[in-house]
Amino acid sequence: MNGVTAVNQAAVLHGPYDVKIENWPMPEINDNEVLIKIACVGICGSDVKLWSTGKCGFDVLTEPIVIGHEGAGTVVKVGSNVSSLSVGDRVAIEPTQPCRTCALCRAGRYNLCPSPHYCSSLGADGNLATYYKHVPDYCHKMPAHLSMEEGAAVQPLAIAIHACNRAAVRLGARVAIFGAGPVGVLCAMAARAMGAHKILITDITNSRLETAKALGADYTLLVSKQLSEEQAADRITELLGGRPDVSIDACAFPEATRTAMMVTATGGVLLVVGIGAGRVDVPLASTLLREVDIRGSYRIVNTYPAAISAVASGAIDLKKFITHHMPLARTQEALRLAQSGDAMKVIIHLPE
Amino acid sequence: MNGVTAVNQAAVLHGPYDVKIENWPMPEINDNEVLIKIACVGICGSDVKLWSTGKCGFDVLTEPIVIGHEGAGTVVKVGSNVSSLSVGDRVAIEPTQPCRTCALCRAGRYNLCPSPHYCSSLGADGNLATYYKHVPDYCHKMPAHLSMEEGAAVQPLAIAIHACNRAAVRLGARVAIFGAGPVGVLCAMAARAMGAHKILITDITNSRLETAKALGADYTLLVSKQLSEEQAADRITELLGGRPDVSIDACAFPEATRTAMMVTATGGVLLVVGIGAGRVDVPLASTLLREVDIRGSYRIVNTYPAAISAVASGAIDLKKFITHHMPLARTQEALRLAQSGDAMKVIIHLPE
Amino acid sequence: MNGVTAVNQAAVLHGPYDVKIENWPMPEINDNEVLIKIACVGICGSDVKLWSTGKCGFDVLTEPIVIGHEGAGTVVKVGSNVSSLSVGDRVAIEPTQPCRTCALCRAGRYNLCPSPHYCSSLGADGNLATYYKHVPDYCHKMPAHLSMEEGAAVQPLAIAIHACNRAAVRLGARVAIFGAGPVGVLCAMAARAMGAHKILITDITNSRLETAKALGADYTLLVSKQLSEEQAADRITELLGGRPDVSIDACAFPEATRTAMMVTATGGVLLVVGIGAGRVDVPLASTLLREVDIRGSYRIVNTYPAAISAVASGAIDLKKFITHHMPLARTQEALRLAQSGDAMKVIIHLPE
Amino acid sequence: MNGVTAVNQAAVLHGPYDVKIENWPMPEINDNEVLIKIACVGICGSDVKLWSTGKCGFDVLTEPIVIGHEGAGTVVKVGSNVSSLSVGDRVAIEPTQPCRTCALCRAGRYNLCPSPHYCSSLGADGNLATYYKHVPDYCHKMPAHLSMEEGAAVQPLAIAIHACNRAAVRLGARVAIFGAGPVGVLCAMAARAMGAHKILITDITNSRLETAKALGADYTLLVSKQLSEEQAADRITELLGGRPDVSIDACAFPEATRTAMMVTATGGVLLVVGIGAGRVDVPLASTLLREVDIRGSYRIVNTYPAAISAVASGAIDLKKFITHHMPLARTQEALRLAQSGDAMKVIIHLPE
Repeated sequence: MNGVTAVNQAAVLHGPYDVKIENWPMPEINDNEVLIKIACVGICGSDVKLWSTGKCGFDVLTEPIVIGHEGAGTVVKVGSNVSSLSVGDRVAIEPTQPCRTCALCRAGRYNLCPSPHYCSSLGADGNLATYYKHVPDYCHKMPAHLSMEEGAAVQPLAIAIHACNRAAVRLGARVAIFGAGPVGVLCAMAARAMGAHKILITDITNSRLETAKALGADYTLLVSKQLSEEQAADRITELLGGRPDVSIDACAFPEATRTAMMVTATGGVLLVVGIGAGRVDVPLASTLLREVDIRGSYRIVNTYPAAISAVASGAIDLKKFITHHMPLARTQEALRLAQSGDAMKVIIHLPE
Repeated sequence: MNGVTAVNQAAVLHGPYDVKIENWPMPEINDNEVLIKIACVGICGSDVKLWSTGKCGFDVLTEPIVIGHEGAGTVVKVGSNVSSLSVGDRVAIEPTQPCRTCALCRAGRYNLCPSPHYCSSLGADGNLATYYKHVPDYCHKMPAHLSMEEGAAVQPLAIAIHACNRAAVRLGARVAIFGAGPVGVLCAMAARAMGAHKILITDITNSRLETAKALGADYTLLVSKQLSEEQAADRITELLGGRPDVSIDACAFPEATRTAMMVTATGGVLLVVGIGAGRVDVPLASTLLREVDIRGSYRIVNTYPAAISAVASGAIDLKKFITHHMPLARTQEALRLAQSGDAMKVIIHLPE
Repeated sequence: MNGVTAVNQAAVLHGPYDVKIENWPMPEINDNEVLIKIACVGICGSDVKLWSTGKCGFDVLTEPIVIGHEGAGTVVKVGSNVSSLSVGDRVAIEPTQPCRTCALCRAGRYNLCPSPHYCSSLGADGNLATYYKHVPDYCHKMPAHLSMEEGAAVQPLAIAIHACNRAAVRLGARVAIFGAGPVGVLCAMAARAMGAHKILITDITNSRLETAKALGADYTLLVSKQLSEEQAADRITELLGGRPDVSIDACAFPEATRTAMMVTATGGVLLVVGIGAGRVDVPLASTLLREVDIRGSYRIVNTYPAAISAVASGAIDLKKFITHHMPLARTQEALRLAQSGDAMKVIIHLPE
Repeated sequence: MNGVTAVNQAAVLHGPYDVKIENWPMPEINDNEVLIKIACVGICGSDVKLWSTGKCGFDVLTEPIVIGHEGAGTVVKVGSNVSSLSVGDRVAIEPTQPCRTCALCRAGRYNLCPSPHYCSSLGADGNLATYYKHVPDYCHKMPAHLSMEEGAAVQPLAIAIHACNRAAVRLGARVAIFGAGPVGVLCAMAARAMGAHKILITDITNSRLETAKALGADYTLLVSKQLSEEQAADRITELLGGRPDVSIDACAFPEATRTAMMVTATGGVLLVVGIGAGRVDVPLASTLLREVDIRGSYRIVNTYPAAISAVASGAIDLKKFITHHMPLARTQEALRLAQSGDAMKVIIHLPE
C-alpha cells in the first residue's frame, strides 16, 4: 500500500475526560470506499460535550470511540469501484454515510436519515486519526489553494450554510444572531456571503463579541441578567434600524429564544441551530400569529460544495476563524481550550 | 337609492354580553366603494369572545361596535369608479381592507398588514347589519348556485384553506388536527379537498368528534387527562399508520401543542391556527432538531377565490357544516348557542 | 425456493415489431434485493415506441431486452439484508434504481440521475416477465384492497402526480391539459384530486375526449387544422371562465405548446410532460415577460406513496382508467392495440 | 412652496429622434402624493428604443411624453395624508404605481399588474424633468452616504436583483450570463453579492466583456458566427468547471437562448430578462426533460430595499458601473451615446 504506513494513531475517548492517543486498527476499505490520510481535524462543541460528559445528543459512550468529525486529508487508496476520486486527491470529509434508502434520503433530506453512520457517534469511529475510510461521494475535492486546516473548518461552515439556507437569508436581509460561538460566527459569515445587509450578534461574553465583530458582524449586543428580554429586543431593533427579517438562535438559552421570537419581523424566520433544553417556556402564539416561521436546522445537507466554493472564492475567509493549532499529542489540551470558550476554532494537526 | 330602504338595522355590542339590535347609520359609499345588502352572517368564535369578554386578540371594546365578519349579500349600489361589480351581484365579503401600501401588503401578505380596517375590530364596523359598505376587490362574486349562507361560511373556509396552504398539505399526506371546533373541522375538509389521504382529528368532546367524522375525518381521538401526551402521540401514529406529515393545532391547548410537536413526522410541518395562550412550555429543541417546521396562519390571504371554487365544484360541502339558522332578532341567542359548543356553525339571516 | 417455479417467461423485444414470449434466465437476487412474482404490467407509450422503432428517447435497441416497466406483483424471496419487505407482500414496482451517489440523487432529484438502472432501458431488463428482481425501497407495499392491475397503473399515475407537483396545481386552480392520451388523462385525475376546480382537456380525437370527460375533465376541446392557435386559446379561456393558472402539455405538438404559452395566465405555470420534437418555434419572449414559468417533468420522484394513497382512498379511481386486459401470450396484440390509440390503458396479466 | 421654483423643465419626446428640453406643466400633488425635485436620471435601453423608434414593448408614442424612469431626487412637498416621507428626504424612485386591487397586486406580484401607471409609458410621464410627483410607498429613502447618481442606478439594479431572485441564484452557484449590456453586468454584480461563486459573461463585443470583467465577472466569452452554439456551450462548461446552475439570458438573441438551454445544468434554471423576438426556434423538449426551469423576469417587484441595502453596504459598487455624466441640456447626446453601446450607464444631471 503506497504511502500508507502500518500504524494508525487515533484520539480515543474511553470515558469522561479520558481521551488517549493510541494505536487503533488500520481501516480496511471495500471496493466502494477510499482510505484517507488525515491532515487536520477541528474540535467541535459536540466533541467537548462527549469528552466531558460521555454523552452528546442521543449518543451515550458505551465503549471506546475515536472522536473527531471535522476532518480533511489526502486520498491514499481507492476501492476498485471508485472512479470519482484518485490517490493524491485532497478532500474535505463530510462526516456521514446516510442509509440512502429511507424516504428522507430519497427525498434529499439525508441529514434527517434516522439511521446514518455519522462520524464519532454510536458505532461509527471519528476521524481524529491518522487514517480514515469513507465513501467517495461524501469526500469533497478541494482546490489546490485551500489549506487542509480550511478543509477541516469547511465542516462547521457547511452547518452554518445549511442553517442560513433554512433561514432563507437573502440579499439585503437584516439578521440577528444569538450566540457568538463558532456556529453563530460562521452563520454571520455565511449570511454576509449571501448578501445579508446588517448583521447583529449577541453573547454574554465581551471577548466573543469582539471576535465576532472582527469576523464580520456589523453590530454586537452584550446580553446579561441586567437586560430584560424586551429591552434586548428593543436594542436589537434600534441597532439594526428595524426588526430582523431573520433571527438565528445559535445558543438555545431560553432567554435568547424568547427574545428572538419577540423581535423577528412579522412574516420573517426564526432559525434554531444546535441542541437546546428539553422544555422551554415561550411566547409561541404571539410569534406564530405574526407568521414568524420557526425552523430548526440539523447537521448538513448538500452544502459542502457551496462551503468549499465560498472559501475558494474568498467570499468567506476561514483563516481568520481558525484561532489555534495543536498536534495530535495535545488533543486533551485542545479539548480543554475549546471548552474554555477562549478559542474560536482549534485545529489538530495529524502527524505527516 | 334603488332597492335600498332608509333603515339599517345592526347587531351592536355595547359591552360584555350586551348586544342590541338597533338602527345604525346607513353607510355612505364613496366613488370606490359598493353598498351591500347583507343576507347572511355566520357567528365566529371571535364574535363570541368579543361578546362575552369585551376583548379579542389585541382588540378591546371601547365604544359600541357592529359585530360580525362572516357575511354575504347582494350589491345594491356601486361607486362611480367601480367597474368590477354591478348592482345585483351576489358577493361573499372578505372582511378586510388592508392599507395596500406597507411592505407586507406590497409583498402579497396583506393578512399581516399592521393597520388594516378589519371588520368588527377597532374602528371598523362589522357586517351583521342590513347594509354594509366595502371595497369591490374584497367582495367576491358567487356563482348562482351558491346560497347566501354558503357565501357567509366561505369566510372561515378561507381561513382554513390559508392554514392548509401554510401547512403545505399535499396529495397523499397524513394529517392530524387538534381541536374539532369549526376551524379544525374546516381544516379537515380543506385538507381532504387538497388530497390529504388520512385525516385524524382530536377533541375533548365526543359529540364534536362525531360531527367531525360525519364531515370527513377518517379517524377521531378523544383526549382527556387520562391520556398522557405521549400516549396521545402513540395513538395518533397508530391510527394514521405512521406519524402525520402535517399537524394542525386548531385549539392551542398546551397539551395539544406539545403532542403535535412530538408526533409530527421528521421533516414535516406543525401549523398553529388561532389565538393561544401567552406563554407555553414546549419541547422546542427536540421538535426543531427533526426539522419539523412550526408555522402560524393568520386570517386570510388570497384564498377566497379557492374557497368559493371548492364550494362551487362540490369539493367542499358547506351545507353539512352549517348546523343552525337564526334571524337577526335572535343574535343574542345565536351567540349563546355558539358559545355552548353545541353548534358547528350558526348563520344569522338578515331581514329581506 | 418457496413458490418460485423454475421457469421465467418474458416478453423479449428483438427488433422493431419483433417481440417474443420466451424463457429468460431466472433473476438471481443478492442480499439487498427481493424477487417478485409479477402479476400485472401496463403497456406504456414508450413501450410502443421501443417496440415499433427500436428506439425511445436516448435508448437504442442493440440486443434483445425484456420490455415493460409498469408492474406489480408479490414478493417471493427476500435477500438476507432486507427487513422492509417479507415474502407475500404485494408491491407496486417503481421501475428505477438510481445511482444514489450523484449530486442529484443526494439532493432528492433521483429522477434526473444521469446513470440509473431504469427498467427496460439500456442494460436493464423490464418487468413484463414472470419474475423480476428489485431493490426493496423502490417496491411499494399496496393495501390489501388494491388490485394488481391498479398496482401496475400506479406507475403512470405517479408520473402524472410528479407532473402536477411540478406544475404547482392547487386547490381552486383552473387547469388546461393538452392531449387526452393516458398521461394527459391521469394528469386530469391527479389535478382533480389536488383540488383543481375546472379542468379542460384538448385532443385531436373525439373519442379520446369522450373518455377524458368520463374520467373527470370538466370541459373538452377538439383541436384541428381548422382552429387557429389563437382561436384555441380564446376558446379555452371562454370555457374555463378565465385563463388557466396551469397548463399541462401532454402531447408536445408544437401547436399545443404555442397555444399553451399564449393561454396560460400571467404568473402561471406551463408544464411539459413527455418527449417532444427536437426543435420548436415558439413565442418564448411574450410568455416569459408575463412570468409564465415553463417547466418539464421527467419520470417519477417520490410520488409512488401519494399515488398509492390516492388510489387507496378512492380519490383517484384507476379502475375506470384501465380499459383492456390481455394475457402475456397476447403481448404483441396488446402493443398493437396501445399503438392504435383506441385503448386508454392495456394491462397484461402474467400467468399465475 | 418652499424651494420649489415655478418652472419644470423636462425632456419631452415628440417623435422618433425628436427629444426636446422644454417647459412642462408643474405636477400638482394630491393629499396622498409627494413632489420630488429630481437630481439624477439614468438612461436605459428602453429609453433609447422609445426615442429611436417611437415604440417600446407594448407602448407606441401617440403624443409628446416626458421620458426617463431611473430617477432619484429630494422630496420638496408632501401631501397632507403622507406620514412616511418628509420634505428634504432623499429618495430613489421606483417608477410604477400598480393598481393595488387586481389579483396579481394583492398576491404581491405588482410588477405583473395589467394596468399600472408606469413612468414614461402610455399615459404616464417619465421623470427626466425638474419635478416629478409620486406615491410615497414607491419612493425609497436613501442613506446619506448614497449619491443621487447611485440612487438613479438603483432602478436597473433592482431589475437585476429581481432577475437573480427569480433565477434562484445561491451561495456557491455557477452562473452564465448572456449579454454584457447594463442589465447583464448588473445581474453579474447582483449574483456576486448573493454568493455566486463563478460567473461567466458572454457578448459579441470585446470592449463590453472587458468592462464586465472589471465589474466582477470571473470569465468572459466572446461569441461570434465562428463559434457554434454547441462550441459556445462546451467552452462555458470548460471555463466554469461544470455546467452553470443558473443561466441568465440578458440579450435574447436566439443563438444565446439556445446555447443557454443546452448548457444549463440538469435541474437548474434558465432566466430570461428583457424583451426578445416574437418567435424563436429552440430545443425546448431536451431542456425540459432535464427539468431545467425556464423563467422570465419582468421589471421590479419588492427589490428596491435590497438594492439600496446592497449599495449602502458596499456589496455592490454602482460607482464603477456609472460611466458617463451629462446635463439635462445634452439629453439627445446622452441617448446617442447609450445607443452606441460605448457607455455602460449614462446619468443625466438635472439643474440644481
